[in-house]
Amino acid sequence: MHVLILGGDGFCGWPTALHLSDRGHEVTIVDNLSRRAIDIELEAESVTPIRPIGERLRVWREVSGRDIGFVRLDLATEYERLAALLTDLRPDAVVHFAEQRAAPYSMRSVPAKRYTVDNNVRATHNLLVALVASGTDAALVHLGTMGVYGYGWSGSAPIPEGYLTVKVPTPDGDLERRILHPAHPGSVYHLTKTLDQLMFSFYAANDGLRITDLHQGIVWGTQTAQTVRDERLVNRFDYDGDYGTVLNRFLAQAAVGHPLTVHGTGGQTRAFIHLQDTVRCIEIALANPPAAGDRPKVFNQVTETHRVRDLAKLVSSLTGVATAHLPNPRKEAIENELRVSNDQFLALGLKPTSLSEGLLDECTNIAGRYRSRIDPRRIIARSVWRPGMETADDLLTDLPDAPPSRIA
Amino acid sequence: MHVLILGGDGFCGWPTALHLSDRGHEVTIVDNLSRRAIDIELEAESVTPIRPIGERLRVWREVSGRDIGFVRLDLATEYERLAALLTDLRPDAVVHFAEQRAAPYSMRSVPAKRYTVDNNVRATHNLLVALVASGTDAALVHLGTMGVYGYGWSGSAPIPEGYLTVKVPTPDGDLERRILHPAHPGSVYHLTKTLDQLMFSFYAANDGLRITDLHQGIVWGTQTAQTVRDERLVNRFDYDGDYGTVLNRFLAQAAVGHPLTVHGTGGQTRAFIHLQDTVRCIEIALANPPAAGDRPKVFNQVTETHRVRDLAKLVSSLTGVATAHLPNPRKEAIENELRVSNDQFLALGLKPTSLSEGLLDECTNIAGRYRSRIDPRRIIARSVWRPGMETADDLLTDLPDAPPSRIA
Repeated sequence: MHVLILGGDGFCGWPTALHLSDRGHEVTIVDNLSRRAIDIELEAESVTPIRPIGERLRVWREVSGRDIGFVRLDLATEYERLAALLTDLRPDAVVHFAEQRAAPYSMRSVPAKRYTVDNNVRATHNLLVALVASGTDAALVHLGTMGVYGYGWSGSAPIPEGYLTVKVPTPDGDLERRILHPAHPGSVYHLTKTLDQLMFSFYAANDGLRITDLHQGIVWGTQTAQTVRDERLVNRFDYDGDYGTVLNRFLAQAAVGHPLTVHGTGGQTRAFIHLQDTVRCIEIALANPPAAGDRPKVFNQVTETHRVRDLAKLVSSLTGVATAHLPNPRKEAIENELRVSNDQFLALGLKPTSLSEGLLDECTNIAGRYRSRIDPRRIIARSVWRPGMETADDLLTDLPDAPPSRIA
Repeated sequence: MHVLILGGDGFCGWPTALHLSDRGHEVTIVDNLSRRAIDIELEAESVTPIRPIGERLRVWREVSGRDIGFVRLDLATEYERLAALLTDLRPDAVVHFAEQRAAPYSMRSVPAKRYTVDNNVRATHNLLVALVASGTDAALVHLGTMGVYGYGWSGSAPIPEGYLTVKVPTPDGDLERRILHPAHPGSVYHLTKTLDQLMFSFYAANDGLRITDLHQGIVWGTQTAQTVRDERLVNRFDYDGDYGTVLNRFLAQAAVGHPLTVHGTGGQTRAFIHLQDTVRCIEIALANPPAAGDRPKVFNQVTETHRVRDLAKLVSSLTGVATAHLPNPRKEAIENELRVSNDQFLALGLKPTSLSEGLLDECTNIAGRYRSRIDPRRIIARSVWRPGMETADDLLTDLPDAPPSRIA
């Protein structure tokens, strides 16, 4: 199968490209390298020393004997080249990671809000139009987010996979309807994924496109069976306040001896998945597309849920670094429960990697090993959801138990 | 009250600007004149001889003694100018009509699909971001569409105003939830209005913007109490296959003696409202904004429903022109029922103008009076929802009862 990986130089895209190549698929990466440009903008590099895409591909050829193609292309602004590429390559499948994917980044400024919407909506819509116009009969797999559902909306019921059965009262009694789960995005980034969903529904219904949307939790873990085969294949590890996930923040802070900064009470419960499971899920989704004419298939791509303060405790117990609480820059519930259905992937053979198995490896072989590359001033989340939610600077510099000499 | 009318040179925008000016409000029109550019692209002008915006405003000053401001600005691409305008003018309210608004146009080609999404999403998102960034505390009223709801989805229950109460089954029994009505857009244009809704929900929740979304039916009628005061104030009447509504198509066909072309069985039921009622609804919505922190307020801006074949019969009975059936270029149900709740506007004092009262005036004083400006070749709908739905040319030229001499 020939698979295009849009955004194949990014955090999920790169290991997915290697995984599918390793399984014998023909792989072409399409990427505008925008994530590397944002590193420069934010003055914060991946903790792991990722190599340029050309070197990555040369090394992969050396270690695997397999070629991966690369096309530098901006989906949002180069429609004609995209349509020509589809016509030329006739891929069997397209995996779409090519969106700005950080919630804090999407809230940090006017340009970042506008870029997130303009880039993500246009990239997705251009892709859908180009698939139709070029007559490409490819299965499309898109990376969504658990953040489309919101938290605590469905009471004690687990969050279903994309669709929700509801009863609609009418004069003739209740009608049962299966609806797209109501959208409750918590940031401009999450908002774009809810917009994507509606575009997918329309193009599936109107044009028969075969689309799968994967509502992924927070990905943890840096490496996969392929990226560890040579250090020059290493995957990104983001630790900065915008792109670093909560777990990466804790790992980076522990590595430099800075207290683990918990937002609010840390009572937020979030869903997680290991990167190795992510690439397996993509493979499973590619093998099980919906039929033409079906509504988009939705999987919840998560394997476990954790409360943020429990994660902090876990990292603290592995590293001996204390925790500290900061005001929450996000507009969200202080505490929430979270139950998520992920039956489809389990039924299709996914064997999850648990956080308790893999976390020590992240502490030691990633954050610990490369800690000299961490700039402690970049770790704290600075983007705020509304003006007035900024964390006072004295809270950041006067944290309890902080060893000042290592905080620079 | 100072009101910005975004898209104030357009079909609904222009009469709204005059109506609000006439009521004593300070009005500034913001428009990029894109609708006039599309006239050139489609080679089909308004049947009524609309005047340039500068002349329109001069004449309005002559007949009313009132000034309306005008700023030529593209919302989708000139963010900085928009933000500066809001900071400068500090409007009390913003009415947002500035979107590509024709469903057939949005389906006609790759560029038209892309333009509709890029323009409409960016215009709306830029506006929301600019309102927040400039600290403008203005009530925002947006023109949505009844097309966000789909047809026949809620059985015998009338379509509610924006939100729907549903029961969500959980292990602890049914939870009652009031959700945004599930989206069922029938075209790329309608899709953009469903995307707008999600953006409105997010910015109302995160930033406290006060937003009203008006889900309007098909607007009929060309003139209002203000536009009739001088022929140079006349409003647009679109009759071409893309921008002309079904009723305008029948009126234009009747005026030139061409059979009224009904798509499919004509069993589609649609919601309608007279333009005079539209401008009153806008005024009512401006006077009744939601509070900051509330979810967007949604009104159904419709006053009556009609089946398409009944409309054809009505026009036929007024004009003596026969009807003809063509294959439907749209992907939609052959027949549908439609019941719509519009209680809010009625409770706030709207007195609807009925089709039976006003239609003859449209036949005589608009389509009939200006019939020499109608190019019969432009009337037929050519945009198709999917390849293969094109109407064969022989069906168009070989219609029963067509008087060939007048079809050019």
